Amino acid sequence: MPKLSMHEITLILLSLGALLAVASAFAEIAKRFSQPSVMGEILAGILMGPTVAGTFFPEAVSFLQPTPGINFFMNGFTTVAVVLFLLVAGMEVDFTRAVRQGKAAIWVGMMGITVPFTIGYLAAGRFPGVLGCEPGVAANVYALFFATALSISALPVIAKTLMDLNYYHTDIGMVIITAAILNDLLGWLIFSVILGIIGAENGFPVPVTVTLTILFTLGALTAGRWAVNRLLPLVLAHTSWPGGVLSFAVTLALAGAAFTEWIGVHAVFGSFMVGVALGDSEHMRARTRETLAQFVSFIFAPLFFVSIGLRVDFMNNFDLLLTLLVLGIAIIGKVAGCGLGAKASGMPWRESWAVGFGMNARGAMEIILALLAVQHGLIGERMFVSLVVMALVTSMASGPVMQLILNRKKSRQVSDCLNSRAYINPLKGKTAREAISELSALMASIYRFDANEVEKAVVDRERLAPTGLGSGIAIPHARIAGLGGPVIGMGISSEGIDFNAPDGQPAELLFMILTPHDDAGAQVQILSEIGRIMKNTELCDRIKKASGYTELLGLIKTKEV
Amino acid sequence: MPKLSMHEITLILLSLGALLAVASAFAEIAKRFSQPSVMGEILAGILMGPTVAGTFFPEAVSFLQPTPGINFFMNGFTTVAVVLFLLVAGMEVDFTRAVRQGKAAIWVGMMGITVPFTIGYLAAGRFPGVLGCEPGVAANVYALFFATALSISALPVIAKTLMDLNYYHTDIGMVIITAAILNDLLGWLIFSVILGIIGAENGFPVPVTVTLTILFTLGALTAGRWAVNRLLPLVLAHTSWPGGVLSFAVTLALAGAAFTEWIGVHAVFGSFMVGVALGDSEHMRARTRETLAQFVSFIFAPLFFVSIGLRVDFMNNFDLLLTLLVLGIAIIGKVAGCGLGAKASGMPWRESWAVGFGMNARGAMEIILALLAVQHGLIGERMFVSLVVMALVTSMASGPVMQLILNRKKSRQVSDCLNSRAYINPLKGKTAREAISELSALMASIYRFDANEVEKAVVDRERLAPTGLGSGIAIPHARIAGLGGPVIGMGISSEGIDFNAPDGQPAELLFMILTPHDDAGAQVQILSEIGRIMKNTELCDRIKKASGYTELLGLIKTKEV
Repeated sequence: MPKLSMHEITLILLSLGALLAVASAFAEIAKRFSQPSVMGEILAGILMGPTVAGTFFPEAVSFLQPTPGINFFMNGFTTVAVVLFLLVAGMEVDFTRAVRQGKAAIWVGMMGITVPFTIGYLAAGRFPGVLGCEPGVAANVYALFFATALSISALPVIAKTLMDLNYYHTDIGMVIITAAILNDLLGWLIFSVILGIIGAENGFPVPVTVTLTILFTLGALTAGRWAVNRLLPLVLAHTSWPGGVLSFAVTLALAGAAFTEWIGVHAVFGSFMVGVALGDSEHMRARTRETLAQFVSFIFAPLFFVSIGLRVDFMNNFDLLLTLLVLGIAIIGKVAGCGLGAKASGMPWRESWAVGFGMNARGAMEIILALLAVQHGLIGERMFVSLVVMALVTSMASGPVMQLILNRKKSRQVSDCLNSRAYINPLKGKTAREAISELSALMASIYRFDANEVEKAVVDRERLAPTGLGSGIAIPHARIAGLGGPVIGMGISSEGIDFNAPDGQPAELLFMILTPHDDAGAQVQILSEIGRIMKNTELCDRIKKASGYTELLGLIKTKEV
Repeated sequence: MPKLSMHEITLILLSLGALLAVASAFAEIAKRFSQPSVMGEILAGILMGPTVAGTFFPEAVSFLQPTPGINFFMNGFTTVAVVLFLLVAGMEVDFTRAVRQGKAAIWVGMMGITVPFTIGYLAAGRFPGVLGCEPGVAANVYALFFATALSISALPVIAKTLMDLNYYHTDIGMVIITAAILNDLLGWLIFSVILGIIGAENGFPVPVTVTLTILFTLGALTAGRWAVNRLLPLVLAHTSWPGGVLSFAVTLALAGAAFTEWIGVHAVFGSFMVGVALGDSEHMRARTRETLAQFVSFIFAPLFFVSIGLRVDFMNNFDLLLTLLVLGIAIIGKVAGCGLGAKASGMPWRESWAVGFGMNARGAMEIILALLAVQHGLIGERMFVSLVVMALVTSMASGPVMQLILNRKKSRQVSDCLNSRAYINPLKGKTAREAISELSALMASIYRFDANEVEKAVVDRERLAPTGLGSGIAIPHARIAGLGGPVIGMGISSEGIDFNAPDGQPAELLFMILTPHDDAGAQVQILSEIGRIMKNTELCDRIKKASGYTELLGLIKTKEV
């Protein structure tokens, strides 16, 4: 039996560690700029792979992927990682809601797939060479793939964008999500059929693969959903909580993935459908979803997406014309299709365009599709790079463009509004007036506004009704004209300052909250979050005793001791 | 570049799924019999591996491990799995507490390692052949290994046993845990040195490996702990919560594992030490621990331990005499060493023996040690089987023997006291008296006691003070002489029954709680758990509307909707 040597095991652990570290760091940076984390993860791979590191430090790169054993391992590991990623993506699909959603979602969903599909099919059928069809690939199969690649959407990215914009539970949000689900289901089904047509490796004739794929999809959405909903209560009742249901979910996903891989479509389709069936059950608990989502999103997904960047030299295979063409056709098809669909269902123009740009994000799904296509020889590396770039650009644009069209404010968390410089510990002031004056002066110097004006506004508000909440917390606040976004200054006083709290306790913890005049939502969001912090007395005590700003920020963010 | 074929990927996904399913199922069965889950997982491997399936269905087994590619993958995957398992095991070590613990823990810890070590070294040095030393292994190195194998303990199993017995936070519990930590640290350090001596593969001279190992251990426990405690607040403050700190922990573990593998001791030692440093930090949050522990314990650990059973034919390599010898020496050395250590530190005899048997569990740690030894050619398959059996037997015995010696009741959860037959939905009775009578009759028939006597006891208690808690919940209860353990009957009434609740609401949900006369703790534990359920009004509503016993049990167990 062949076995990995100690040297190979060292290299495997080292590269997993290094890849995870860099991918996570870049994902965090991407999020800091309100970009999807997949953006940062792929960039990390491009930096560590042949594109950048390979050009400047060729020895270092050859060191990372040396032996067949390591290669087999990495190959299998990233497959397992993407299978689990699609399980989690599938669990985010709320199929029951999708079925219940009315006309609008069906319009958007159907137009969102037929318009880009038709445009893509016609374009690639007419100009296969220009649009990256490699010699040896049948033009009609290629056109089918190209059309599908344009039609797919990225449910996880879209859902995240909608949540960031506080849009997830609105009517528009529901229409977009439902339409994206329809798109994804249909897109993956068509792609599975394409893989069936080209992938003779598995030994099934094409009609058998296609029939099995359709049967599997329908089965998962009907009998599968029913069976999972029946089995889950049994698993919950008779296995250890919360681990038993975790094993159950992963086992099912692996089985589904093995089945679809066996019939000749890719493993990811199987785990995605299992995820849809599992996520739809009323018995699936939030804690299970969260444990799975956390571990997969922060361990497996970064390791998978960073490996994308490692595979290909993005510089040498970057074809500007091809990328611009792909990008243009993709955006026009999707935005027009979904936008017109939304309009046809009765939405006003402004909302319709927002729906179009919302649906335009391709994200992780497109990248997985492109990877499978390049692995099956359906597309070359040039086209692969173009599709990845298209996926990233559409995902990056989606949030900001929607925000612009709908003039929607992003939801704000307390930790986003804090600043390490707007933090005074200990406060010198002994009275509410003095403390407010101290914080006003400091915040004015940081955010460049007039200290006296702010101080007056906060004191006036304080006179109207005192802002001592009790439990040693006070929240002096005011709305300030011309502020770009909400900002919070923090002050800590170990002796306590009287803010006329209902419980009579002096405030040791001051949040001075300044919000823009025209943003009523920000104040409500921030106050409700501070209310949640206040309820946890152990947390409040730790915040009061925090040794510095970093520890304080960590406590406020995690809301856990 | 070699790549896994579709067929190989199908097999990998299929075997991971099948192994996880069977291992998890057997782990659940083991837990049902109050045994550690590793017991069930290894048994699952024995059934699916060469021992049972290989004897009866040889084609099926050869189907599971066919190509070099799959083998490389499985090899690497189980390594990553055990590395993460040791990370979690290390995080359970509370090093600061271990340092603070006084005389008793040091006595038990030192005696618990020196006595079995000395006995083992002398025995294996005197009779190497009888005790499984293979030709070609130096007798003194073998004796060193054998001594270490007897000295190690299984922190996770021991911690779990203490928690089950409600002993974790008592003085004895603290002494045992602290001593086990000392044992584990020293045991793994010695074993690492042995691996350094025999493992010439890595290319370092022995003194270098040994020096590096000791430096790494000391560094991790001093500078490493300090650095982690400094870095964690930064990670918490500046990365996404709760995922960022998860990536950070896994990255560190992989880096530590790569380092120790590189210097010639095994990867697991590195991730264990990283776990100790991480787990010890005051900034490590409960949620991160839990997500890691859940995913590792229920996905990675089962896949690792089931693979143990797959490696060796346990039937053909089972040597009864050797196993009995190993078992005898192991138990005598550990129980005597720790017991006498506890006595020497001033504990009474009874508690001293309890400490001895508590420390006797070898569990997962011993199995990992044995696996590494067999992989490095230090022991043969016969000795491997004997060590695994010894580990399992000592772990199985530990809990029951401690319980027997200390006459301690196991902690009871509501779900353990329910019975699918002791469930009435809907109750026919319209009054408290009628409902109690209905439940008494049913429970009497199930648990074989006199219905009238129980009914009278419950009604008398009800007269003393009504048991309606409010929010539609009532808990009629009584202590019954001669009952083996607490039992709960459940009744649901959609109209509600008046139990004189303080809020005036009729009870729709009845828990009739019968506890043994001599077990005052059981009633307190059960009532406090029902109190927690009651606080969650959404949960209560769902329980009242549960479609059957299984759904109800799942709701009570998970306490989540």
